[in-house]
Amino acid sequence: MEICFATARELRDALLTKEVSAREVVSAHLAQLERVNPAVNAVVTLVAERALAEAAAADERLAAGEPVGPLHGLPMAHKDTHDTAGIRTTYGSPLLADNVPAQDDLVVERARAAGAITIGKTNVPEFAAGSHTFNRVFGATRNPYDLSRTAGGSSGGAAAALACGLHPLADGSDMGGSLRNPASFCNVVGFRPSPGRVPNWPEKAGWATLSVKGPLARTVADAALLLSVLAGPDPRSPIALDEPGARFAAPLERDLTGLRVAWAPDLGGAVPVDADVLAALEPAVGVFAELGCVVEPACPDLSGADEVFRTLRAWQFELAFGELLDRHPDQLKPSLRANVEAGRRLTGPDLGRAEVLHTALHHRVREFFQRYDVLLAPVSQVAPFDAGLEYPTSVGGVAMADYLEWMRSAYLVSATGCPALSVPAGFTPAGLPVGLQIVGRHRADVEVLQVGYAFERATGYGSRRPPVVA
Amino acid sequence: MEICFATARELRDALLTKEVSAREVVSAHLAQLERVNPAVNAVVTLVAERALAEAAAADERLAAGEPVGPLHGLPMAHKDTHDTAGIRTTYGSPLLADNVPAQDDLVVERARAAGAITIGKTNVPEFAAGSHTFNRVFGATRNPYDLSRTAGGSSGGAAAALACGLHPLADGSDMGGSLRNPASFCNVVGFRPSPGRVPNWPEKAGWATLSVKGPLARTVADAALLLSVLAGPDPRSPIALDEPGARFAAPLERDLTGLRVAWAPDLGGAVPVDADVLAALEPAVGVFAELGCVVEPACPDLSGADEVFRTLRAWQFELAFGELLDRHPDQLKPSLRANVEAGRRLTGPDLGRAEVLHTALHHRVREFFQRYDVLLAPVSQVAPFDAGLEYPTSVGGVAMADYLEWMRSAYLVSATGCPALSVPAGFTPAGLPVGLQIVGRHRADVEVLQVGYAFERATGYGSRRPPVVA
Repeated sequence: MEICFATARELRDALLTKEVSAREVVSAHLAQLERVNPAVNAVVTLVAERALAEAAAADERLAAGEPVGPLHGLPMAHKDTHDTAGIRTTYGSPLLADNVPAQDDLVVERARAAGAITIGKTNVPEFAAGSHTFNRVFGATRNPYDLSRTAGGSSGGAAAALACGLHPLADGSDMGGSLRNPASFCNVVGFRPSPGRVPNWPEKAGWATLSVKGPLARTVADAALLLSVLAGPDPRSPIALDEPGARFAAPLERDLTGLRVAWAPDLGGAVPVDADVLAALEPAVGVFAELGCVVEPACPDLSGADEVFRTLRAWQFELAFGELLDRHPDQLKPSLRANVEAGRRLTGPDLGRAEVLHTALHHRVREFFQRYDVLLAPVSQVAPFDAGLEYPTSVGGVAMADYLEWMRSAYLVSATGCPALSVPAGFTPAGLPVGLQIVGRHRADVEVLQVGYAFERATGYGSRRPPVVA
Repeated sequence: MEICFATARELRDALLTKEVSAREVVSAHLAQLERVNPAVNAVVTLVAERALAEAAAADERLAAGEPVGPLHGLPMAHKDTHDTAGIRTTYGSPLLADNVPAQDDLVVERARAAGAITIGKTNVPEFAAGSHTFNRVFGATRNPYDLSRTAGGSSGGAAAALACGLHPLADGSDMGGSLRNPASFCNVVGFRPSPGRVPNWPEKAGWATLSVKGPLARTVADAALLLSVLAGPDPRSPIALDEPGARFAAPLERDLTGLRVAWAPDLGGAVPVDADVLAALEPAVGVFAELGCVVEPACPDLSGADEVFRTLRAWQFELAFGELLDRHPDQLKPSLRANVEAGRRLTGPDLGRAEVLHTALHHRVREFFQRYDVLLAPVSQVAPFDAGLEYPTSVGGVAMADYLEWMRSAYLVSATGCPALSVPAGFTPAGLPVGLQIVGRHRADVEVLQVGYAFERATGYGSRRPPVVA
């Protein structure tokens, strides 16, 4: 079998029937890494020997008839902002270039407990700030569809690695689009689950809901498979949802006839979007009508979402990085420093106002989803841009004020708290991938995955065009 | 049957078997109200005619064989900080003395949908601030065991009404002890559920976890019955827990043999407690050993809990009442004004620090509950005090700095986010009620109720001594 571009489900089945061994699966991916990774710079720390030893142990467990987990033998590299016990975890910061954590992040712990084999770490922007993956430790990650372009971020290494067949599943995180933008840019699937679906641990502010962890994969079904392992309650997160993760392992088949679909190409006028992105998305939206959905142009009133996101983000950055900034004022990138400083200027009443706006937004979106089952929107307002830029300075003819503004189509959705999927939806005339964002109502993670799965089955966009390196 | 002092479960069964009618039940309670309420001032708005009409309609529904809810025919007065459509809701503030809401609070809506019959509203401190029920609209609520004393608060009207047989079930809310202190002071049961267990709506800050709504009753089983109706998910609260409320309708019987019980008479040295309270609680704690529990002196490290509670409370007060203070600077009581002003002085980083302390506290308490199943502590540091005081100025010989400090034994527990029950546990030599606080691990609401139920069955304290007015 074509090991490096099989789906995780296919690989898992082949492993369980002993058609392939974990050693063969890991070796094939390590060979692919050696061949392709230098061009994309997606996996920045490699633990090849350890992975081969773990693969051998996995094969022995299966041979001995011992129970194995749902990710048995599947190689994964973990996001470099997710702690890995005994493996360098830099957060993309020179300050942590030699940091070796003692404990696994909860998502790493769960993936490994389910049988996944750690092969390394995927590249991130410095402290995952921003949606373009570059840092002073490892440099930039390149887009597998055009090496001069960005892979997006902050789960940019993860998305690029998936697109190039370096591993079949990846974990990521998303505050303002970090699971969705890189998926959109790299023609893979990224899913931002509801807050608490995947418990955040370790986490300095346990009740915070803006940043969530979640899966990336090459197919929706594979993302759901990984989510079935990552999701579920854990007392280490006070906001963890009680529903067991196993729910996401069920088949995703669903008849979309009569589904009420809202299409918001510019999020109700809230964002400019480049013409090549919209041109790629229009036919994708048409597919929903072909599937029997009732598609209408509509968008919830997102007033206040921008203030909610920017206020809560600045506040979170201050509490996460304020001390670090004091100790090493010259060692944080200027955009991150500016965010921490914005957090320092916030007052309690500013945060009170943000929470009131946040709650009002929740209710408007809740009422919107009484009329519609899902909302479709662009994931990204732009196609993958020049990797030499820090951010695109103009979108749809509108100048961007800072490194966050071009991500509004993703971060406004973060502020709603709704689950959101990025699924491959086509290409620009220049051959750059474009993702469709499918947003569901409060906690309707399963429904979003079902809708994305039906779309993917109808189109096959993600598998239709290989990257230029693979 | 003795209608006004039957349990809600007994009454409900008698109603369903038509041993009594809803009209008889409501009439008996209205007569009790007329006779006893003037002495205690617990129910401050009465809707007798409407209640009798609703009772007649309930009887007709049952007679016609139509389905009826689990609270069929049971009279309830709702807390005067909970909106009731068409019934005056003052929040204890002169500013809202004539306020008639258009919509029910979610707890009122749920109780009524389950068949409860609204008979009126229970008294509160101004905007529920503080744990002594007095305000400029209705005056003070009196303790049914000593009319010169406070009934506690903020659900003080509710607790006093239950003790006097004015109604069998009551709703309340609890930020710093408002379901627990009045229960302790009035010899009834009050349960502070986990945040999100009873969805908060309406609520300006939908993600806030400090203030929760919950049940009061004369027995633990009745409190659980009401909770089974009030709990369960609702999309109007973004933090609502998914578990259905029906879980709390199951029998509470549980063998406590081997239960690991920690007893913290002064919460690890964090609070002074009056000697008469401790003397009442010692034999109550002894009951757990008799029930086969392993009882040890122990308390989680509550460092930071005070700062967490006071910071988050001031922040919440600013966002809830800041505008009101600007519009009516002379119309908020001075203690409330001071809390709003404290909220105005908070910075974003102050709140960040509070969230970091909150999270660290969560983890210490989580680890504590790996070693113990429940924590026992005093609900209140004092017995019911003189109703003419705003707050007790000294506890256990220690001077109290403000109107919150004497409530620390309750509010430190609020900061942990753990479910906590106040169950009648004895009396001081002066005949004043003393409650025992049973605290369980994160989201273990059912277990806390089970333990409280076993304790109540073993002791019967709540039913052992009638109030001086009844």
